[in-house]
Amino acid sequence: MQDDGKNRISVEIYGHQYRLSGKASVTHMRMVAGYVDDRMNEIAKGNHRLDTAKIAVLTAVNIADEYIRLQQEYQELLRLLQEDAAEANE
Amino acid sequence: MQDDGKNRISVEIYGHQYRLSGKASVTHMRMVAGYVDDRMNEIAKGNHRLDTAKIAVLTAVNIADEYIRLQQEYQELLRLLQEDAAEANE
Repeated sequence: MQDDGKNRISVEIYGHQYRLSGKASVTHMRMVAGYVDDRMNEIAKGNHRLDTAKIAVLTAVNIADEYIRLQQEYQELLRLLQEDAAEANE
Repeated sequence: MQDDGKNRISVEIYGHQYRLSGKASVTHMRMVAGYVDDRMNEIAKGNHRLDTAKIAVLTAVNIADEYIRLQQEYQELLRLLQEDAAEANE
């Protein structure tokens, strides 16, 4: 850890080394890198002709798809929780 | 739409064309593609020496980071909602 309070690690994703830095824990950063590596390998398996850039873009698209869906579900859950809280105060 | 019930669209992400297909709406798929395009352009702005593959991998890493955090918050919210439901049944 350097003076700015950020953690810095080297990770391997789809055969290439990347330096990641952030305030998150090293464990969290390694988990994120492992998740992207797994997803890239999955996509590469099903599409042998794709180059690394295209595999990475499609991986980003797939993860963004799930992220945006989860954001919608999260908002819905938050709404339910606020309704419950309002009912409890009645 | 073809017989398999999937929507198919062409989108441009970071200057390249991609064919996306899925059961999601065309609106959702365009939003996801736009999100990835925006994030890639943001990362490219801050790192002029990165090639497209590295920009795409770092974009996937950033989105995965937010996705995994949101999964944790979602689980926490679900736990709160279940606690509320259990209290309501007491």
